[in-house]
This record gives sequence, structure tokens and C-alpha cells, in this order.
Amino acid sequence: MDFIPRQEISFLLNDWLQVGALVDRPYFSQHNEDVFEQVLDLAATIARDAFAPHYQRSDAVEPKLVDGKVELIPEIQAALETYAEAGFCAAAFPETVGGMQLPFCVSAAAFSHFMAANTPTAGYPMLTSANARLLAEFGSESQIEAWCKPQVEGRVFGTMCLSEPQAGSSLADIRTSAEYDGFDHLGHRYRIRGNKMWISGGDQEMSENIVHLVLAKAADDTGAVLPGVKGISLFAVPKFLPDGTRNDIAVAGLNHKMGYRGTVNCLLNFGETGGATGWRIGDVGQGLEIMFTMMNEARIMVGLGAAALAFRGYARSLDYAKERPQGRTLANGKDPESAPIPIIAHPDVKRMLMLQKAYAEGGLALTLYAARLVDDAETASEPQDRETAERLLGLLTPIVKSWPSEFGLAANDQAIQVHGGYGYTRDYDVEQTYRDNRLNPIHEGTYGIQGLDFLGRKVLRNGARDLELLFDKMRATAAKARHDPDLGELADQLDAYVSEGSGAISDLLNHAAHPAALDNASVALSAFGHLVVAWLWLDQAVAATALPDDKVLLKKAKRATCRFFFEWELPKVSHQFALVKTCNAAASGVDESLF
Amino acid sequence: MDFIPRQEISFLLNDWLQVGALVDRPYFSQHNEDVFEQVLDLAATIARDAFAPHYQRSDAVEPKLVDGKVELIPEIQAALETYAEAGFCAAAFPETVGGMQLPFCVSAAAFSHFMAANTPTAGYPMLTSANARLLAEFGSESQIEAWCKPQVEGRVFGTMCLSEPQAGSSLADIRTSAEYDGFDHLGHRYRIRGNKMWISGGDQEMSENIVHLVLAKAADDTGAVLPGVKGISLFAVPKFLPDGTRNDIAVAGLNHKMGYRGTVNCLLNFGETGGATGWRIGDVGQGLEIMFTMMNEARIMVGLGAAALAFRGYARSLDYAKERPQGRTLANGKDPESAPIPIIAHPDVKRMLMLQKAYAEGGLALTLYAARLVDDAETASEPQDRETAERLLGLLTPIVKSWPSEFGLAANDQAIQVHGGYGYTRDYDVEQTYRDNRLNPIHEGTYGIQGLDFLGRKVLRNGARDLELLFDKMRATAAKARHDPDLGELADQLDAYVSEGSGAISDLLNHAAHPAALDNASVALSAFGHLVVAWLWLDQAVAATALPDDKVLLKKAKRATCRFFFEWELPKVSHQFALVKTCNAAASGVDESLF
Repeated sequence: MDFIPRQEISFLLNDWLQVGALVDRPYFSQHNEDVFEQVLDLAATIARDAFAPHYQRSDAVEPKLVDGKVELIPEIQAALETYAEAGFCAAAFPETVGGMQLPFCVSAAAFSHFMAANTPTAGYPMLTSANARLLAEFGSESQIEAWCKPQVEGRVFGTMCLSEPQAGSSLADIRTSAEYDGFDHLGHRYRIRGNKMWISGGDQEMSENIVHLVLAKAADDTGAVLPGVKGISLFAVPKFLPDGTRNDIAVAGLNHKMGYRGTVNCLLNFGETGGATGWRIGDVGQGLEIMFTMMNEARIMVGLGAAALAFRGYARSLDYAKERPQGRTLANGKDPESAPIPIIAHPDVKRMLMLQKAYAEGGLALTLYAARLVDDAETASEPQDRETAERLLGLLTPIVKSWPSEFGLAANDQAIQVHGGYGYTRDYDVEQTYRDNRLNPIHEGTYGIQGLDFLGRKVLRNGARDLELLFDKMRATAAKARHDPDLGELADQLDAYVSEGSGAISDLLNHAAHPAALDNASVALSAFGHLVVAWLWLDQAVAATALPDDKVLLKKAKRATCRFFFEWELPKVSHQFALVKTCNAAASGVDESLF
Repeated sequence: MDFIPRQEISFLLNDWLQVGALVDRPYFSQHNEDVFEQVLDLAATIARDAFAPHYQRSDAVEPKLVDGKVELIPEIQAALETYAEAGFCAAAFPETVGGMQLPFCVSAAAFSHFMAANTPTAGYPMLTSANARLLAEFGSESQIEAWCKPQVEGRVFGTMCLSEPQAGSSLADIRTSAEYDGFDHLGHRYRIRGNKMWISGGDQEMSENIVHLVLAKAADDTGAVLPGVKGISLFAVPKFLPDGTRNDIAVAGLNHKMGYRGTVNCLLNFGETGGATGWRIGDVGQGLEIMFTMMNEARIMVGLGAAALAFRGYARSLDYAKERPQGRTLANGKDPESAPIPIIAHPDVKRMLMLQKAYAEGGLALTLYAARLVDDAETASEPQDRETAERLLGLLTPIVKSWPSEFGLAANDQAIQVHGGYGYTRDYDVEQTYRDNRLNPIHEGTYGIQGLDFLGRKVLRNGARDLELLFDKMRATAAKARHDPDLGELADQLDAYVSEGSGAISDLLNHAAHPAALDNASVALSAFGHLVVAWLWLDQAVAATALPDDKVLLKKAKRATCRFFFEWELPKVSHQFALVKTCNAAASGVDESLF
């Protein structure tokens, strides 16, 4: 089955995000809308045929370390070969590095099929793509040749090595060191020594090589290692060196996870026997800044994966709800001699399905909107449009990462509940989907870190300048919706909640030096996430107006789900805004001795 | 470690619920408060020494069916032998059946230690106790002798067999049949045939015998089997018959669960080779009514277990938060050369800990309050006090079952999050605790079923008579709190939310025939649950006022957590009450074709 209906993707891309207009830009001029549709069809097919079938098996038979080598079930490699052969590794890369030069939003939409079918298997190309994109942007020509292009071809995979056992959220505290070792055709060469934790795809036997992008501390021209993040540089450290020999990288162990098991996760020791060889990417001290261009893409992909898993659970529980007979309606007096009804007819089951639908479709809309902003930031004709897209993207990235992680997970919880006792067994896969999705609020920056990024860096630090830009977009949608008799009331509500959110931030700005201003940043992240998704729901409802008659069900469904989100979900933000606005200290102000 | 601090239990039982006063009642007159404390100390010790150590192993090595026999890790049997030897199987039973005749609330509090240490191992005595209590109340003398007393001694275990593969929430649809087969010293004997699903403890080799309490359809005196639940009777069907031979019961398979794995869960086939022998408990057609006396106890125990798991996750994440250094405070300018601080100092970590503390302690208070009502319903001196307790207990049971299941689980989610990536690995046990707790909103009546029971049967059907009684209790607490300068404002808030809840129900009663009146019953369950727990928080804060000086930290902690619950959690109910009051149909009114 297609966990994400093709019709849904087409609506979001074509009817809502207007990707057809992208082909007017020179960068995408070799494509047309039909090409996009073919790419999406192919993705759906490969996801169904090569990714979905081993979903449960890759959980049951988790990666093993045998004689220093990582053993995975062979279906993962087979799926990724099919994926690479179809060209998906190259989808969103420029032709200059061997890419297909598709819009990022189209390749992200295609990728959502793989994520829904088998997130852990899709984890490998997700990291590889982010890795290659970093190299394409910051690598030298020879570095691109050596490590970027083979990843675009799908022969080589990539990882990102940031965390260490003692340094997760706080990268200032990494201890991995890089010692200068000369210059060659690949650039400045270093000896890398240290331990890197939580390395997804950290080792495997599927790809010809693995390019690790490693953060390490290196001395600057004066010979000093600057303290904190300023001392961090970035290095490409390949598993196999250009001469074919093994680099000094050892798998110290595998992490045994709650879910997401098919993506092997390693503790890697670099340089245990002399020093691993790595080449610097970019300048000394630029490491974190460069890595975050990769992290930002990875964060969009985390959100996309969380939304895709929400779709997966929704599809499974919708099927179950249509097929499982149980109980009777009050309407027929619960006559025990009448036949049981499918559980979808029970109001509480409908509630659980609507919640999942609103979260899944809302999350996918949010991530594809962000992916469209990536395209605009890179290829919009007018500089000011590029700047606007970049500002919105920066502001929204923590929300794009976190909202689907929080609410996609909540959707998966409901998918279990719809199945009753059966959902709690491993005969059904909704419990696995929950476990897989549980990683998303943690990796690539925890929920709390995203909250600080959003409220601190993205909102307060620039005086809410970018947030006001976002509010303008919201008000513009409300203005369009206001004259539609079905949507006018929702438009007023959106405006009202925008004012509430704006008021909360104004108050914070007025005492931005307040030591507690960021204490409830996670609450702000959740609340503004809901506001953003409500806006996108209204925007989708407006776009659905123009749907042709043969899509009347889709139009009605979009409007009904938009209304549900406004009536059931959006009102929750008022209380959250109040907590943020007042810097409520009932949690953060509690003395540690009272826990 | 003690996952639930002994001090917390003592506060709830002695300072808040005043269990000391119970020994004035003739039924408990052989006890005194010291005895209660000794029982609790012993429970904490055995939980720590015999239950906790195999928590992770019983998850990793799950029950297996080998040659028709269930294989469990031996630590489970060893723990349960220690438990039985210490007399805990007998704790809350009357002396007439060999019990210790302890108050139910004391035995429940003791049991919370076992649940926190190892819920799956505690699952066996939980079911056994509920089974034996049913037999003590409804069994004949010979039935009590044969099956109740051996369970009280801990030699025999019990199960409850309600569900079938096609009939979970809808027991009217069970197909298991009972055919009359004569009368003997154990009563009316029947031949039982059918399949029973989700049978926890359905088979094992630890106990001398297993007493299955089985719902089956049987003919009445006229020879007719009445349709629906009226045709259901209850039968005791032992694994071994009185002559020592095996009864006709086969384990058809084990369910492989997301968590709670140490409690084996079976599909049982009764009567495949002629008919299992069972003896009727109570009269024909009384089955469901009798079973629900057992279910009501089981539901309190589910809530207790969910709260205990919330404590477990809270204790683990509190420890972790105190020990894990990461990052720096804004206060010291995030100076990278300063030492990292323990993460408990980060505001967002405090938020996650406060949430867990409020949910864990709130859930335990709720369940022990209900357990105290059980004691009052059975042993209060005045008939009107017994009736009041019974009415409150009936009203609160769905909340007692569901609120800790919903919010204890939410607490466990936060326990994972506090641990970051480590919490997602099986090296730490918080992910297991989440998985164990995920069963609680499902078994012994799903969340949705509890919602219908609460709003339909317990509130609307009696014109909110019992709810008004509960509101009187709440107003009485508010009146006590009003004159305390720290609590006065919270008292006003409680009154205000009581008025909101009361208003929502009045509106529903005014159009109780509205076909959508019960559509949002789950929302009502969640909202009234929060209101009840807020009330109990305020009541605890009032009780804490009288604590002696050496417990000043506990007093402050109770007040701080009460305030947190009022400021962060309680305001959420306004929106929920509004959805209930207006019979909002944005979910339930959606046509199935739009999903």
C-alpha cells in the first residue's frame, strides 16, 4: 500500500505549492510537471516494492557487530541499490556534481514515500544526501570529485560525526582533536583522534566507502585551539583512504535502540592506532557553521520522516478501523442481535483518526513548505524573494524539525490505540512505527535545543523581525480566506491567535534581558508550531477551493480537517502563549532540593 | 533504589488519607499504624531485592511456549515466592479466608512498590488478588475453599478470561459456551468451549494450579440463551481438576507484546477435546455483573501501576539529570571554559521533571484515594458514609484507571527525553518503562470505553447526582485552602473550574437525548481527570501544612508541585469542557468517505 496517498502529494506540490511554476526558472528549465509526477510515481513504486517488505524484519533482526564488521539484513542493501539505480541519490543535486537538478521540494516529497515505507532503511540515503550537499557547497574541486560525486552516484555513503559520549547537545565540549599533517591534492590533511557517539550508518558493508564528516578541535594559524565552538573545524574522514587502505577508524560498539533499528548506530573510535587521516573542509574554526548547513537540511528531513511515519500509522489504523467489527451504535439501541459495526463508525475512533490525519497531513505540508523555501532561497529570480525565503526558512527550521516529531509521535500513539490490544502486539507494526518515531524529538538537536534555537536565536535575537514577516504571511492567508463563507470564521480565528502570539513575544522583548525569558522556550516552540500548522491548514483549505469536481472529496476532506484543527487543536495555544508571555516560573523556578 | 520514596507513601497514607483512623473500626482493630509502616517497609525491601533486579532481563528474554508449556525466566518465580512468603498475597483479604485483613489502601500502597520495581512480575499477583476477591465475595463455601484460599496463600494463581479474538470491548459478542453437566460439591458444573484472547498469566509452571474465571454463554432455566450480555454467566475453570488431572485447556499461542513482556499473555482454547470443566460462580446471567466487581479492582490496580511506572521513570530521569553534566547556564554567559553543569539546572529539564513529578504523585494520590474509598465503602461505621464512598468510587473508577494511564505514560515519555540519546537505548530502562506503561490505556477497558462509562453511565445516566457529590468535596477542599495565603488563589481557581465542568454537564443534561452527547466522552474523561487531580493536589497541599519542621522540604515540594499543576495543567480543561459542552462534531461528524 502507499502509506502517503499519491493524490495527497500531488495536491500539496501542484495545487498548493505550485511547483509547476518552478520550471520557469532557468535552474529547473529542463524539467516539466510531468517529470515531477513520474519521479513521484517511481518513488511510490520502489518504496512499496523494495522498502516496505522488510520493515518489520529489520526491526526484529537488528544490526550486529561480528568480527569488527556490521552485519545488516541483506534486504537493506538490495533496497538501496534499487534506490540508487533509479537515480534517487542524485535527485536534488546540481548537474555539475552529477545530479538531476530537481527541485528540493519534489525530491523531498519523493523521499517521504521511502520514509513512510521504511524509515530506518531510508536513513542511509538521508544522511548521505545531507553529507554530499555539504561537500558540494563547501568542498574544493578535488574534494567534490573524491567524496561528493560518488555519494551522488550512490556508490559511497556518508555520516555526520558531531556528538561524543560526554558531549551531545553541547558541542563546545567535544574532545576529538585534529593535528595538522600537511597538504596534498585533497587539501589540508590532519590526524584525527577521538570518540564519536550516535553515528548513524557509522559502519556497514554496503557502500564502497563511507565519508565521515567529523567535527574536531584544531589549532589556528597562531597554534592555539580557541575555546568552545570557535575551536571547532570540520573534516572529511573516509573509511578507505585514496590508496585503498583502511583508515584508522574502529567501531567500538553499536547502540541498541528502542526503534529505528535498521539504521545501524555506532560508537566510532578515530585514531586509536596513530591517528585517522582527515582533510579539512572549509577554514579553521568554521566547522560548526558549515556543519549547520548540513544540519538544517537534516532537520527538515527529520520533520519529513516524522510526518511520513504519522501517515504510516494513520494508513494502518484507518484500514484496521474500516475492517474490524466491534460493538454497535447508540443509534440502533445497541441491539445485541444486530451485526457489529466497523469501529470507524464509533465517534471516539473517528476522533483518533481525525487527530492522526490532521497531524500527518499538517506535518507533511509544513515540511514540504520548508522544502519549497529551500528552492526559493536558492533559485528565486528576485534577490528579495531569496532573502525572504531564507529568513522564513531559518525561523521555521526548528518548528519543521520539532512539530512533526512531537505530533507525528502523538499520531502514532493514537494508531496503536485504534488497534486496541492488537496494536500492542508485534503482529501489527504500529508499535514499531511509534518506536521508530520516538527518535525524532531527540536526534539532530533535541526538542529543548530546538526551542532555544527558535525563541532565542530566531525570534528574540533579531527583535522578532523574521517572526513579523511570518505573521504577514499568515495575515495574507487570512485575508484570502475571509471572503469564503466556509472559512471566514477560521480566518478571524487565525488573526486572533496571531495577535496573541505577537503579544506574547512583544512582552518578552520588552524584558528580553529577563533571566527567565527563555525558560519556557519549549512551550513557545510547541505553541508557534501549532499556529504555523493552523495557518498552513487554512492555506491548504483555500488552495483546495480551486480543485476540480472530480476531486470534491479531497476538497471536502481538506476543509473538514482544517476545521477540526482550528476547533480542537489551535485553541490550546492560548494557554501556552500565556505561560511564555509571563515567563511563568512554576517549573523553572523550583529549587533542585524539591525534586 | 526505591522508585517511590517511602516518605511519599507515608505522607499520602498518614498525613493525607489518615489511615491511622481506620484502626478505630472493628474490622481493622487488630492493627495499628506501626504495623502499616512495617508492611510498607517490607514491601519496599522485597521490591528492591527480588523484583527490581530482573526488570530488564524479563523484557529481553520474553516468555516462550515450548512443547505446550510456558517458559519464563526463573527470577519471576523466585520473586513471587518471596512475595508470597512475606504474606503479601493475603494482605487485603479478610481473616475468614486466611487474609491479613489490612486496609485496601495500605495493601495498594505496598503493592505500588512492586509495580514500580517490576510491573510485569507484579502482574501475576495483581490478577490473582482480583480473582480471589471475586471468589471470596461470590463463591460458595466449597468454592472459596477450593480456589480462593489457595490464592490467598499464594500457592495458586488466577486469571480473568473475558475477551475473545472477535470480542474485545464488546463482550456481548463472546461465543464461548457453557453446557450444563450436573451438580457436585463445587456447585453447578458445565462444559466450557471457546477461545479466550489476551489472557495475562494464562499459563505458567510457577503455581500449583491456575483458576481461570471465564465468561461464557449459558442457557437459563427455560433452556434459552439470552442475547447479548444477559446471556453471560461466570465460571471457575481450573487448570487442574480436583482429582489432579489436567482440564481441557490448551495454550494456542502467546502474544508478543510491545512491553509488559514478563507477564505472559496467551490465547487459550477451552474444550478442544470434549469440553473444559467449569463451575458456575453466582447465578445464570450474572456473569458480567460479578466480573465487574473484579474489573473495578483491576482498574484501580491498572491506575496504580501506571502511576508507579511514572514514579520509576521520574526517579531514573531525576538521577540522570543530577549526574549528567552538559552545557552551561545563560547566567554565566555560557563561558566555554567553565565546567559543564548537571542538566537539572537547565530550565527545560526542570520542566520535564516537574511534569513527571506532578503526574506521578498526582496519579498515586488519585489511586490511593480510590483505595481508601474501597475501605470506606466496606468498613465505614455509618451506612451513609459507606454509600457516599461507593458513589464516589463508582464515579471515579474510570478516571482512576485512565488518568494515570494517560499521564503516567506522558511522564515516561519525558523520562526518555531527559536522557537524550541514551534514553533511546536499551542500556537505560526508561524506554522499557514507556513500553510497559503503553499497555495501561488499553487493557481492562480501553480509554474510549472508560470515557463512555464515565460520561454515559456514571454522569449523565444519574443526572450528575454523583458528580455533584464530588463537586461538593472539591468545594470543601477549596474552602479549607482559601484562608491560606499561599493557596487562596488556587482555591478560587478550583472553584472556577468546577463551575466550568458543572456548566458543561448541565448543558449536556439539557439535551441528553442529543445523539452526539457522548461523542466526546474521551475528552470529558481527560478533562474531569485533570480537575480531580487538581483537587487532590490542593487537598495534599492543605494536608502538607501540618507537616512538622523536619519535613519542610516535603511541605514546600507539595506546594510547589500543586502550584505547577494549577498553573500549567489545569487551564487545559477549559478548552476540553467547551468541546464537551457543545458536542463539537468536527471529528465525530466527519463522513467516513473523507478519511
